[in-house]
Amino acid sequence: MDDAFNALFDPASVAVIGASDNPNKVGGRPIHYMRAFGYAGDILPVNPGRDVIQGLPAHASLADLVARGKTPEAAIIAVSGDATLEQVRLCADAGVKAAVIMASGFAETGARGRERQQELVRIAHSGGMRLVGPNAQGTANFASGAVLNFSTMFMEVAPQDGPIAIVSQSGAASVMPYALLRQAGHGVRYLVATGNDADLDACAIAAALAADAAVRLILVYLESISNPDGLARAAATARARGASIVAIKAGNSARGAQAAASHTGALVGNDAAIDAFLAAHGIWRARDIGELVRAVPLYLQDHAPGSGRTVVMSHSGAVGVMAADLAERHALPLAELHADTLLALEAILPGFGTASNPLDMTAALLGQGDMFPRVLDALGADPQADMVMVGIPVAGPGYDVEALARDAAAFSAGSRKPLVASAPQHSVREIFARHGVPTFVTEADAVAALAQYAGHRRLAARPVPLSDRPASQPPGGRGLQDEARSLALLGEAGVPVVPYRLCATAGEAVAAFRELRGAGAGAVVVKGCADAVPHKSEHGLVHLRLASAQDVARAADDCLGTLRSLGVEAPRVVVARMIKGLHEFALGVSVDPALGPVVMIGEGGTLLELRKDIVTLLAPFDVADVKAACARLRIAPLFAGYRDVPALDLDALASAAVALGDWALRHRTAVRSVDINPLMVMAAGEGVMAVDAVVQLEG
Amino acid sequence: MDDAFNALFDPASVAVIGASDNPNKVGGRPIHYMRAFGYAGDILPVNPGRDVIQGLPAHASLADLVARGKTPEAAIIAVSGDATLEQVRLCADAGVKAAVIMASGFAETGARGRERQQELVRIAHSGGMRLVGPNAQGTANFASGAVLNFSTMFMEVAPQDGPIAIVSQSGAASVMPYALLRQAGHGVRYLVATGNDADLDACAIAAALAADAAVRLILVYLESISNPDGLARAAATARARGASIVAIKAGNSARGAQAAASHTGALVGNDAAIDAFLAAHGIWRARDIGELVRAVPLYLQDHAPGSGRTVVMSHSGAVGVMAADLAERHALPLAELHADTLLALEAILPGFGTASNPLDMTAALLGQGDMFPRVLDALGADPQADMVMVGIPVAGPGYDVEALARDAAAFSAGSRKPLVASAPQHSVREIFARHGVPTFVTEADAVAALAQYAGHRRLAARPVPLSDRPASQPPGGRGLQDEARSLALLGEAGVPVVPYRLCATAGEAVAAFRELRGAGAGAVVVKGCADAVPHKSEHGLVHLRLASAQDVARAADDCLGTLRSLGVEAPRVVVARMIKGLHEFALGVSVDPALGPVVMIGEGGTLLELRKDIVTLLAPFDVADVKAACARLRIAPLFAGYRDVPALDLDALASAAVALGDWALRHRTAVRSVDINPLMVMAAGEGVMAVDAVVQLEG
Repeated sequence: MDDAFNALFDPASVAVIGASDNPNKVGGRPIHYMRAFGYAGDILPVNPGRDVIQGLPAHASLADLVARGKTPEAAIIAVSGDATLEQVRLCADAGVKAAVIMASGFAETGARGRERQQELVRIAHSGGMRLVGPNAQGTANFASGAVLNFSTMFMEVAPQDGPIAIVSQSGAASVMPYALLRQAGHGVRYLVATGNDADLDACAIAAALAADAAVRLILVYLESISNPDGLARAAATARARGASIVAIKAGNSARGAQAAASHTGALVGNDAAIDAFLAAHGIWRARDIGELVRAVPLYLQDHAPGSGRTVVMSHSGAVGVMAADLAERHALPLAELHADTLLALEAILPGFGTASNPLDMTAALLGQGDMFPRVLDALGADPQADMVMVGIPVAGPGYDVEALARDAAAFSAGSRKPLVASAPQHSVREIFARHGVPTFVTEADAVAALAQYAGHRRLAARPVPLSDRPASQPPGGRGLQDEARSLALLGEAGVPVVPYRLCATAGEAVAAFRELRGAGAGAVVVKGCADAVPHKSEHGLVHLRLASAQDVARAADDCLGTLRSLGVEAPRVVVARMIKGLHEFALGVSVDPALGPVVMIGEGGTLLELRKDIVTLLAPFDVADVKAACARLRIAPLFAGYRDVPALDLDALASAAVALGDWALRHRTAVRSVDINPLMVMAAGEGVMAVDAVVQLEG
Repeated sequence: MDDAFNALFDPASVAVIGASDNPNKVGGRPIHYMRAFGYAGDILPVNPGRDVIQGLPAHASLADLVARGKTPEAAIIAVSGDATLEQVRLCADAGVKAAVIMASGFAETGARGRERQQELVRIAHSGGMRLVGPNAQGTANFASGAVLNFSTMFMEVAPQDGPIAIVSQSGAASVMPYALLRQAGHGVRYLVATGNDADLDACAIAAALAADAAVRLILVYLESISNPDGLARAAATARARGASIVAIKAGNSARGAQAAASHTGALVGNDAAIDAFLAAHGIWRARDIGELVRAVPLYLQDHAPGSGRTVVMSHSGAVGVMAADLAERHALPLAELHADTLLALEAILPGFGTASNPLDMTAALLGQGDMFPRVLDALGADPQADMVMVGIPVAGPGYDVEALARDAAAFSAGSRKPLVASAPQHSVREIFARHGVPTFVTEADAVAALAQYAGHRRLAARPVPLSDRPASQPPGGRGLQDEARSLALLGEAGVPVVPYRLCATAGEAVAAFRELRGAGAGAVVVKGCADAVPHKSEHGLVHLRLASAQDVARAADDCLGTLRSLGVEAPRVVVARMIKGLHEFALGVSVDPALGPVVMIGEGGTLLELRKDIVTLLAPFDVADVKAACARLRIAPLFAGYRDVPALDLDALASAAVALGDWALRHRTAVRSVDINPLMVMAAGEGVMAVDAVVQLEG
């Protein structure tokens, strides 16, 4: 970590400007906490009205501290409003390395506040100081005791160092997972709530904390990804060490998507861009605080989930039935046990009949005798069994829960395979938890946690695509491009486009018809072409299936006249070969200002927006990524051939998508969106062809 | 409750046959429990080897009891295997009214066990005795202390009477919700695990318990709905009193659906039939044990959820943001506050700016002063605010949680509007729970519970459709019907079908062409017609768009020749008018043997099974039900007109679906399935038309 981060998380001294003797005031809490939680550096209260604060000598001003040679490394600025700017200036001038600004009244209040916030940052940077906040609850390192944080939570739920970091833009969202984790006995090292993210933002702090070798898991709460590069850096740092990031990105109302201009933009929305971004960087996206913390014990245990094939065992058939339902819901595969394992199980459990997964094993799960550990041994040796879930719906007299828990823990430690237990009884969970077995109240939580853990490890194992595409001349023009220009740009990008000609007269159109048709008997399409008239069908500007020169001339005249009547000065028509594919797809891009180009692939046609059978990918990506994504489409069986229709050219579709994504990435500042619909997909080996397209450039 | 149920749940005396002195044996537990939990009737242990059992005088045999004039009202039969049949015979002969059979080794073991089980029931019924089980954990009434149940759970988690009944086919699935509820402080009156459901099954018992006026909520776990009428009766009895049923139907593997013969059957599967059945009867379907118990406090409080419009309030913006995301996910509407409420809120919370939902109300939620109760008063008076969620992400010094909880409880009691609180801290939840406020660990659980409660009340408010359709002559024939016969049956059912003629020669086909075409210039379709050849396209037996007598003759000859070559003795063709609708739908029925006809409506065409844009309804239903269901289709916007396509005839689609459902209901024993695809849907007012159909009859 660089200077500023060291100053925040492991400072030699911390000034508290606006210090309070009352440990329940904003300016009192950090002092109270640092003293209570073992901070070994100097706590330097600054308050002109008092000599002693919480038993510590107080200083009248920062200048006093400087004069005594006690310039603090870090500062908490707990004064309000306008006084904040003045104190930031004094700190910056004095050489303080980093400050936490707790006051609100900045960017969150509107334009005036935004200006004051920019001023705040400017002042700080002028002296080389970095800021957290304003409007920040602050930072905390429970390893060093440096708690530059005023949350009420630490008064109630005592901290304990551990392998988890929590980084949040919101104070509440930082302490909620903290409370759940601490109450469940997990230690948390870092807890940071950054507020307005004016300078050192949540993503940058996550990246810094990801470098701490003791941190195994980083939980992040964001309402906006203001610093995607920082988050990508955090992910890369964590991945390099085998640590994990689970993140909530909140605030996904449908409104954002509705406001988008292009069809692709409207379909994709900002939320799909975030999904694609997080997935590309191996970050698991949780949907709420419960999901954020649910799989924590599995991450901390750090066993290998393989491909997630799970064995469910219980002394209740119902638990097996429900777990199988839940596994299907979460796409968690149930293990097909190896033949050797089945033989071993039948030997251990005579009269067991056909051993199958879920394993219903009445007597063995009472924990008496050695049946349970022997069954676990058999599972440990089975290469087809990756993870184990043990359901204990009831226990009491006659059950040796201690033995079960001990054997379960030994299995997991020995085999390095994840094992979880679910039990509705507090008392049962306590015993398993004491032995270090991840425990859950319900099968639903246990299955969801296993599915998340295995899914996340699989996600994180994928290589992060490189985004350094060579730059090239950006496309000229601004705003919506007409059809001919759109097709031309796509052709340059490497997307196959329909053969077409741009014609200014009916005579040119007929010549184009003859040329495009060639020796064959094919038909053409004539479409009016003007960037000012994007909705061609509504104006009768699309004429399909024209197979004679006469029809082409009539259609061209018709379109040119209509365009003129619509005020288009130099009207033109596109004459294009009439193409029929085996299936109509849509291919598009929406360039997210922060995250980059999100490519959409899906079933095309006029019902695109209703059927919403689409997948999205954040550029860059490769052909294999496209194929994996397309396998999730509802119409995916078409690719292999479906009923009377032969297999589609998935290779060509994937290549077109990769070309479009790379092009949009190279020109991400110039391109806003691309809609290709339909993209005709032919039989395998015969390619794809964009037949209708609109490119929207910036400006 | 009739005699048998009274004997089970409130018996004057209970014999325990196979009684054990060891309270941890199957034959010892019920004795221990009845003594411990205040059963006031006679406990009569039967064991030939002992004089005293658990301090009670033991009897050598049932005959001894009878001889002493102590014939028991109920019996627990806790002997194993073959001895069970003998004891059932003795009980039945002696006039015992009901018995719980705990032994396993019956239907769950295979054909031989099934026979023994039938024998068991026969013996019991011969003496007028009713059975629970075999393989049953048993029954329990914690109001009377009659615990004819051997579960270990009651040793660990002490019972307490309350307004909840739990009825389950599985022992484990009965005690898991019990444990969760009791640990959360809720009382449970009945807990029943019925095992093999040979006689008094889970559904019948739920129906009996639904009549207990003290029961407000019945939680049901089923792996098969062996007695749908019983479950319907339970639902009707509960609804009549304003009580609710929440049910898990487990075991929904994809396999069941795959095995189905018809397209509709394959798409619908048994699981959709169960969804439709439960919804029709106002039963909420929970997916796991967590969901089963989650909304319990709301049901018990029994406030009116209105149309579910929810106000979220918190002292954290993040809680509001996350709750809004979660509400959207659960389709829970956030309340648009009334203008008067907004004015009132601005008066109470000066400087609050624009009061909007979610309400971010920092100071007011510290519980100091009277701001919180005044805000609640304003919400109580707002007819547009139905429910309230209060999120308390953190509390401690400076928070008056007692006051918050008291005010929250007073609001709910006064306004009769549901209010829930979510808080990650144990200590905060305890205070709210003590005041009777439903509390949740996370916003996700709180929102899910509110959504379920409001959704369930809405579901239960719908009238239950009457299923007494007049009987009529069942359709003749067996198995797959050919196209002509299928269309004819659908015509009889009241579904509009395409005009067609069945022809045996090319000459007849040409005559049909002339007749169907009439004065117009329309085209016809010629299709080979033979029940032995259902896959017409594969054999080239479909000729579309025929517009001349010559083409029709050629097509007919072709089809007739092909059918002859396939071994069809009297080959025929269907000549039908070529119909083009605005959109192709599919309409079908799959008759579930237990639950009745499930009608499927969705987007048709060759990609029906891939797009799976379908809804299902259990017959009977009315036009309004179809319209409500169709509104859930992805392509629903087509009904109102979409882009260049005018509005579709939803009325005609709904009428056709109702006609098909009623017909299938009248003939549910004769009809197995119907597939209509496509059903052409025309513009509003112009109807629908079945153009391709296969009816499958039983046999």
